[in-house]
Amino acid sequence: MPQRDAINRRIVLAAHPHGLPTAQDFRIEETEIPTPRDGQVLLRTLYLSLDPYMRGRMDDKPSYAEPVRLGHPMVGGTVNRVVASKHPRFRAGDLVLGGAGWQDYALSDGQALLALGEMKQPSQALGVLGMPSFTAYVGLLDIGNPKEGETVVVASATGAVGSVVGQIARLKGARAMGIAGGADKCRYAVEELGFDVCLDRHEPQLRERLAAACPGGIDIYFENVGGGVLDAVMPLLTIGARVPVCGFIAHYNDEKLPPGPNRLPVLLSTVLTKRVRMQGFIILDHYASRYEAFRRDMGEWVTSGRVKLREDVIDGLENAPGAFIGLLTGRNFGKLVVRVAGN
Amino acid sequence: MPQRDAINRRIVLAAHPHGLPTAQDFRIEETEIPTPRDGQVLLRTLYLSLDPYMRGRMDDKPSYAEPVRLGHPMVGGTVNRVVASKHPRFRAGDLVLGGAGWQDYALSDGQALLALGEMKQPSQALGVLGMPSFTAYVGLLDIGNPKEGETVVVASATGAVGSVVGQIARLKGARAMGIAGGADKCRYAVEELGFDVCLDRHEPQLRERLAAACPGGIDIYFENVGGGVLDAVMPLLTIGARVPVCGFIAHYNDEKLPPGPNRLPVLLSTVLTKRVRMQGFIILDHYASRYEAFRRDMGEWVTSGRVKLREDVIDGLENAPGAFIGLLTGRNFGKLVVRVAGN
Repeated sequence: MPQRDAINRRIVLAAHPHGLPTAQDFRIEETEIPTPRDGQVLLRTLYLSLDPYMRGRMDDKPSYAEPVRLGHPMVGGTVNRVVASKHPRFRAGDLVLGGAGWQDYALSDGQALLALGEMKQPSQALGVLGMPSFTAYVGLLDIGNPKEGETVVVASATGAVGSVVGQIARLKGARAMGIAGGADKCRYAVEELGFDVCLDRHEPQLRERLAAACPGGIDIYFENVGGGVLDAVMPLLTIGARVPVCGFIAHYNDEKLPPGPNRLPVLLSTVLTKRVRMQGFIILDHYASRYEAFRRDMGEWVTSGRVKLREDVIDGLENAPGAFIGLLTGRNFGKLVVRVAGN
Repeated sequence: MPQRDAINRRIVLAAHPHGLPTAQDFRIEETEIPTPRDGQVLLRTLYLSLDPYMRGRMDDKPSYAEPVRLGHPMVGGTVNRVVASKHPRFRAGDLVLGGAGWQDYALSDGQALLALGEMKQPSQALGVLGMPSFTAYVGLLDIGNPKEGETVVVASATGAVGSVVGQIARLKGARAMGIAGGADKCRYAVEELGFDVCLDRHEPQLRERLAAACPGGIDIYFENVGGGVLDAVMPLLTIGARVPVCGFIAHYNDEKLPPGPNRLPVLLSTVLTKRVRMQGFIILDHYASRYEAFRRDMGEWVTSGRVKLREDVIDGLENAPGAFIGLLTGRNFGKLVVRVAGN
């Protein structure tokens, strides 16, 4: 269903998924393009960000944010062009960061919009200059607090968050140890992103390989996956290790708890004997206090080429569900964005 | 085997326990009383502290401290009288805090000794004025950071650490919610220690009762037990909750991990969505920086009657193994100490 003039396509939640979402959990609909009233702007979506957190919103249970209701558009960060404005702060043609969700057009009262100015690569506002990178920045710097010579481990090392975690770790003089799915991603992590080592999570004996690669232990484990990576990391944590927790994608599709044994006592024992600080954070909490510092620092790092983020760009809103399902199984290579329309 | 003159009785580790220790894992031995050389003092043990951490030392595996070797005396904090001194800082008759372990007499080079001065109740140096109370102080204040009106939950609420956690929580204007084993302990926690509520862990439906008792959720969970209490607490943690971890006695006797399901993802999800800070600590790390403040504050609180700790005093070194086994199953009522000799 390609985009046609005067038609707004939107992808709504058709069903709450059982386990890994399928195409049938989404439905594409056509509606009329809405007309802005006083105080509103009409947004055209150029880029839609696809991020793991969206999986949580598809479930019908409370979390830190409201779930998407059946029949409602999937939520998501977007880069938009203002098409028409009856809002004093925005003019037609403005490039903005918005939360238009999985649709071609949306109305906004302007409150959640951030003017972007002109950008050579607007999709960066969803990646290396946006939420995932900010997540890496706050989690690694504010919770992880890396010191020179320390060892930082992050999985999904070529993903949107992991890529930036590794590069900031290196900027702070720490060793960056990545874990990624497949030889290509591992090579990219080392050769392009500057990780010291990157281990393939598909190869056997991750624990042994990780132990060999971290002879001095792991000072910071940036948790975004859970599952077997956490199991491999725990015995290697150093005394006083920090574990910022921003996600655990390995479990997002679990319909029930994994089988036993119950490994919770292993975590308790590790936290106690290693004096670990494990701290969860939701990046939305940190915009007020930290976003300005992030914009300044990351802007410099990106401009000077010290931090980069590969983008995995999918063309066409209609391909968002398939791309999102691929994200949950690690098929993406870099920050996943959907190009919904030309700039 | 009562104590005889000129004989040192000591209780050594006879075997590494399988699960809950048994009497056969200990052995009482008689040796000669040693003679101090230059720079040494000879200590007579008056009181021996029995604490849950000792269970970990009985296993033949590395932890934050060295395990006790087979045939060696069990370790432990003690209040001692200096019997003879060839050390410039100590004189015969001095009352000291030491680590003489499970024995009548021990030599010391003085380094780990702390002069106590005269005390009306010397066993307090092992309890409300000693390590367990200091554990409560550091964990609750430095990691938990309770604020007025917040809700603090602690299990083993009439135990050495839990009693003090609850009373400091109240001193800071927080609500103190205890969990303890049996109606007597629960009554004591509320009537004598000032807990707002204390729930009996033997009664069914702990989750439901805890939820009902904490309508505003749990802001601080002082973790010293693990197991079912942690399971009951997790869904009730508030956003930004703190979980200082000082132990997990429910698992100390586990020979293997508990059966499934694996509840580790529940913890990860809780830590993330509630932005929980979970932090382990070992009290030995904090003497240099915090012990003076503790002595000053706790001394005042104890003198003024605002903090108290019931002592469960067992007579006779030979009864230490049985008392210790009882500690691991919750048979003690208050801080467990062994009176090894008169003052």
